[in-house]
Amino acid sequence: MTTTVDYERNMVLATKTYDVVGTRPIRHDGTDKVTGRALYGADYDTAGLLHGHIVRSPHAHANIRNVDTSKAEALEGVLAVVTHADFTGDADGLVDMGEGAPTSLKWLRDNVLASDKALYRGHAIAGVAAVNPHIAEEAASLIEIDYEVLPPVITVEQAMADGAPILHADLKTKELGEETDNVSNVADHFQHKKGDTAKGFAEADVIVEREYRAKTVHQGYIEPHNATALWNADGRVHVWCSTQGAFAVRDAMAQLLELPESQIRVTPMEIGGGFGGKIPIYLEPVAALLSRKSGRTVKIVMTRADVFEASGPTCGSWSRVKIGAKNDGTITAAEVELAFEAGAYPGSPVPAGAQCALAPYDIENGTVDGYDVVVNKPKTAAYRAPGAPNAAFAVEQAVDEVAQKLGMDPIELRLKNAAKEGTRRVDGPVFGRVGLVETLEAMRDHPHYNAPLGENQGRGVAVGFWFNIGFHSAVDLAVNGDGTVNLTEGSTDIGGSRASIAMQAAEVLGIPAEDVHPSVVDTDSIGYTFLTGGSRTTFATGWAAYEAAQSVKRQMIERAATIWDVDVDSVQMEKGVISSATDPELSMTFKELAGQLAGTGGGISASESVNPQSFGGSFAGNIVDLEVDPETGKTDVVRFTAVQDVGKAIHPSYVEGQMQGGSVQGIGWALNEEYYMNNDGGMDNSTLLDYRMPTSLDLPMIDTVIVEVANPGHPYGVRGVGEANIVPPTPAVANAIQSATGNRLFETPMNPVAIVAAQENGS
Amino acid sequence: MTTTVDYERNMVLATKTYDVVGTRPIRHDGTDKVTGRALYGADYDTAGLLHGHIVRSPHAHANIRNVDTSKAEALEGVLAVVTHADFTGDADGLVDMGEGAPTSLKWLRDNVLASDKALYRGHAIAGVAAVNPHIAEEAASLIEIDYEVLPPVITVEQAMADGAPILHADLKTKELGEETDNVSNVADHFQHKKGDTAKGFAEADVIVEREYRAKTVHQGYIEPHNATALWNADGRVHVWCSTQGAFAVRDAMAQLLELPESQIRVTPMEIGGGFGGKIPIYLEPVAALLSRKSGRTVKIVMTRADVFEASGPTCGSWSRVKIGAKNDGTITAAEVELAFEAGAYPGSPVPAGAQCALAPYDIENGTVDGYDVVVNKPKTAAYRAPGAPNAAFAVEQAVDEVAQKLGMDPIELRLKNAAKEGTRRVDGPVFGRVGLVETLEAMRDHPHYNAPLGENQGRGVAVGFWFNIGFHSAVDLAVNGDGTVNLTEGSTDIGGSRASIAMQAAEVLGIPAEDVHPSVVDTDSIGYTFLTGGSRTTFATGWAAYEAAQSVKRQMIERAATIWDVDVDSVQMEKGVISSATDPELSMTFKELAGQLAGTGGGISASESVNPQSFGGSFAGNIVDLEVDPETGKTDVVRFTAVQDVGKAIHPSYVEGQMQGGSVQGIGWALNEEYYMNNDGGMDNSTLLDYRMPTSLDLPMIDTVIVEVANPGHPYGVRGVGEANIVPPTPAVANAIQSATGNRLFETPMNPVAIVAAQENGS
Repeated sequence: MTTTVDYERNMVLATKTYDVVGTRPIRHDGTDKVTGRALYGADYDTAGLLHGHIVRSPHAHANIRNVDTSKAEALEGVLAVVTHADFTGDADGLVDMGEGAPTSLKWLRDNVLASDKALYRGHAIAGVAAVNPHIAEEAASLIEIDYEVLPPVITVEQAMADGAPILHADLKTKELGEETDNVSNVADHFQHKKGDTAKGFAEADVIVEREYRAKTVHQGYIEPHNATALWNADGRVHVWCSTQGAFAVRDAMAQLLELPESQIRVTPMEIGGGFGGKIPIYLEPVAALLSRKSGRTVKIVMTRADVFEASGPTCGSWSRVKIGAKNDGTITAAEVELAFEAGAYPGSPVPAGAQCALAPYDIENGTVDGYDVVVNKPKTAAYRAPGAPNAAFAVEQAVDEVAQKLGMDPIELRLKNAAKEGTRRVDGPVFGRVGLVETLEAMRDHPHYNAPLGENQGRGVAVGFWFNIGFHSAVDLAVNGDGTVNLTEGSTDIGGSRASIAMQAAEVLGIPAEDVHPSVVDTDSIGYTFLTGGSRTTFATGWAAYEAAQSVKRQMIERAATIWDVDVDSVQMEKGVISSATDPELSMTFKELAGQLAGTGGGISASESVNPQSFGGSFAGNIVDLEVDPETGKTDVVRFTAVQDVGKAIHPSYVEGQMQGGSVQGIGWALNEEYYMNNDGGMDNSTLLDYRMPTSLDLPMIDTVIVEVANPGHPYGVRGVGEANIVPPTPAVANAIQSATGNRLFETPMNPVAIVAAQENGS
Repeated sequence: MTTTVDYERNMVLATKTYDVVGTRPIRHDGTDKVTGRALYGADYDTAGLLHGHIVRSPHAHANIRNVDTSKAEALEGVLAVVTHADFTGDADGLVDMGEGAPTSLKWLRDNVLASDKALYRGHAIAGVAAVNPHIAEEAASLIEIDYEVLPPVITVEQAMADGAPILHADLKTKELGEETDNVSNVADHFQHKKGDTAKGFAEADVIVEREYRAKTVHQGYIEPHNATALWNADGRVHVWCSTQGAFAVRDAMAQLLELPESQIRVTPMEIGGGFGGKIPIYLEPVAALLSRKSGRTVKIVMTRADVFEASGPTCGSWSRVKIGAKNDGTITAAEVELAFEAGAYPGSPVPAGAQCALAPYDIENGTVDGYDVVVNKPKTAAYRAPGAPNAAFAVEQAVDEVAQKLGMDPIELRLKNAAKEGTRRVDGPVFGRVGLVETLEAMRDHPHYNAPLGENQGRGVAVGFWFNIGFHSAVDLAVNGDGTVNLTEGSTDIGGSRASIAMQAAEVLGIPAEDVHPSVVDTDSIGYTFLTGGSRTTFATGWAAYEAAQSVKRQMIERAATIWDVDVDSVQMEKGVISSATDPELSMTFKELAGQLAGTGGGISASESVNPQSFGGSFAGNIVDLEVDPETGKTDVVRFTAVQDVGKAIHPSYVEGQMQGGSVQGIGWALNEEYYMNNDGGMDNSTLLDYRMPTSLDLPMIDTVIVEVANPGHPYGVRGVGEANIVPPTPAVANAIQSATGNRLFETPMNPVAIVAAQENGS
């Protein structure tokens, strides 16, 4: 598809335009959100509600010898205390939360309530339910836990060292797909291989080889985790919580609690951010067990410290990258090693990191080795393109160094080696139609790229890749008599997907976006819908809306044919007008026909479930200008342009918001954010004051350029847009710092201390 | 269809049996109801909720000269005060609440908040919203209303008398379909006519002619009216209330508030009884206006006195019946006059009463005259077979007298003249297949009918008819991976319809009723569904469930064919097993296939909207034994058998419950209940202590006999069962009192005072 750049609109225009898709209506839930009327999990209240509190380990690594809950149980106002012992069954098997590979049910259960070991500071040991939060907290303080404290391992290098303390005595390393008898903190080592890297490096004129480290960071959603549960006397469990996937919660809870999935009803409350971190369950099973024991509804809400210390950060990592290239810029070989923190239980995002590491490049010879390493930190959770920023921080800096060595423009180097349709990735798959070339061209041609720089300023670029997945989504539609349409869906709306899904139905029906009323409903009220994550919601649930709207359209055409007493094949519906192809007198609007449905056979409704298997994938790139104070090392981002191939922007404002949000999170990771760990394995900055996320005062407006290279695997060409935008910022910032200071930094955060140290030590 | 009586099971068996339909599973909402966890409107709470209070007229009839709200508005804690002046627009047009004929929008608006006149004691004049109910009540007391008190009219006879005070100066009587210039309290006089009554009476050997009176009674639901509303800043109005029809509330609110219907979202909370009285809106528009003014959510809950004095009772009535018959029992002519109270605004149930009055009889010559008469009482609302009990109280007593005069058994007389398929009713329509003959035969052959009577005991019988309507219903289904099915519907569940609707889907799918999980959802989350009333819900929404299940079944068959790679026409699904007609190896259960959906193309869901036009109709009959204390006139019901043609009992327990409930309400009306009015037009017994409804201590177990004459216009043969059962009790009790005492009573309530008076005066 030909694209035209319109820098006034900051958009690379796709040739196909629509009436609703591509416009910018106000989101349907906007008023409720800005007036404080939207109901979040912590708002939940009901008669007889109990308040829960979690007892957490103060130790990063310890054996749990005994848990004595008797004093807590005896406290007036306490109705239930639960520990791991309240789980039943043997927890065999796997559980799939939709975060990637399924994990062990036992590990999930141990993470929810520790059994024999506490594996990180903040690990939940027991839960208490009482008539108010104060009594619950007091009761929690009365629970006596006998710990044998063990030395912790905090980084992958510590964890992989010989003689390192072992977290799981039964964790045997999987080596290149084979089980071994080797007990270690490395859960898995895998390798992707393409071509012959030795031959490739032999052909290279220049080679760059470096090690890189990224610190553990948190998703930093505004709303803490919360869960309310009622284990009803009829055996049905109702859960109200903040989640990216109500059905994922339902199904995991069913496995943990040994109930059929339909015995659990999950109502997704509004969500105050997730970024992947609201996929796992933490409080939900504890609230349910407390409810079963007390017979009452139980609500638990995390503090911010709980969120940092006991809910999913993304991984710190160690990486090694070696890249060789010819003098003409052709990359001949690449070698990548990625060792990622999984946290307390196996399951780091290293598989995705390994897939994305070299994805932007069409390379003949490459290997990527991945290591999934357990450490004494909370189990990592998905975080926006999980694993890809860690990999890109390494690869995109190495590519930058190659460009410098070759004296080549870094965008031209990337264009020369850019992956495109037909490129086989190092990890195997062959790309369909992707928009990296168009993204790089938009970067190259953007005024920003050639704008002058001031004193102490530098400019960096980088690109990154992320998938978008498909999977199950359901949408129900019903036509109202006034020509509006009700839409129900099971997808959590984190970033405007009520609008982007409603718009895809509105486009088919030829009615305004505002005339489709979307509702996010509970798991008893809609067909199975996979979680909001993997940049899938606008893609897949939007597709379900498209299909349901097609069904409504067919029924409207049939009804018009009945009313007019003409052959159905002679009736058409375009842009919200139903008309006869043969009789120009016969024509009415969608709204007019909607008003006649009641009297002509009844209402029209439709339900469609989809499971698209054709995946898209999105490339993003950044141009970033920084100014670094040479005395203090303080960095100011002075200009930032985010470019991304989005396939088709259903609602450009929300696409831009995604691009801006991902950029800001990436900048925070690059410059400030980290889990600042003490020697005992505790996090010393578990408050939003000390864990320094950028605010609007810290950053300029992030400029956005939407590139639209339609995804042929979607009715409107949508690619998921939620994640690729967080991939390039960490290396783009690093490259800009190098441009500004002459020093290259190989570890996040690249804060003033690190910049000053680099100046002093050289690097 | 042949029926067989099985008195052990108290059921007349239809020949067709099913696996799920006809069984007695526990209702899906049972646990929530018995544990107090079901959420009713008064339970609704949200942050910043305001509490509303209604200022009501102390006068039954008065001009409103002025309303001064200034002192109330000035009270600390008051956020809004509204009066009729807060309505905008000119209220032209009609509004259809689904209670029968549409009513004037102006009248509805005036009933919600009076404009220039107060037309009954309790008439709402103003609404107040404050931070708590106490301040709201105090503020209400500060509103100063200048009334000019007028003389009230309390009965139809007063209202129709010459020189009666006129309620509406602009109400011109409609006479036999024609507008007239005659201003009176009679809104409408109509007539149905068949044959030649003069000729018919000339052929008669005996003639009975009598006048009858029934007092105003209330539906007496346990839960008072309540409404919460939020007029959001985006212009959408969300209403939470106790209603039989969320869509009816939505559409009426839209007209009253001049909004498109889809700008209003109505969430039906659980309902504590309705019986027709939860169809109109009272508090909802006031809460919405208060919310618009205050910007906050406003909740209003009626007291019991409010319920009696300001929400819909059913009509008191005056009737005249003249019936002639030959010596062989053939009824040759019937003449019926019905004058029914409409309450303060036109719209009594006299049209339905007139249709039902002679419905049980195949009569050559008949007339029915109906008069719709306004009086100074709250506007009547639907109440279980509205109008039919008033008519039956008259006609069924007259038929009893004819039988006595002829010396004929009253059931045999009714059998001789019974309406059946092909009978043309006096009001025009021709009956399809109906089950009056089978009902009368079941009564005649029941052991009760020939059981001996004790001293001071008497036995009465009567029959009655009520329609069941069709109209719009929608159901959505979605298959869960564990083989259960989620069902969403828009029908308020008053008497077990979650179960009776779920069972009709379960039957198609061959799965247990418990494996279908029904949810009643709001008006934004399901296709248009007409109200729960007119005995339509199990009939029409059940039909929608049947159709949606057929769609799921088709999709399951298609999926199995895909999995097996066989022709779809070779696959069948029976009793929950999908199998190949050609390969006996290929077979799996619904549950097994459900578990494979995710991996074989995705979930299965279905949405169906129906609008059945083929109506059923149900006949009911009673045998009642009473013992009357000759000294005090106290009446004990000693045995009561309720017989009803239900078409097909989906859930026999809930059908029996409907028959028992209707019988008890009819007995209450017959023996005790009445609006006891003082001379000023006020109700002197507006508490549940003084308004004497029968309790379980007052009555024996009501025996039930279910007759199943399948309705050919429904997939399972369902007829609506909710209403016909309240029609025969009033005359059956009257006939039994005559049998016990020798005195016939022509007015309800037939309480001890009336019985003693009849003994003293003779009658």
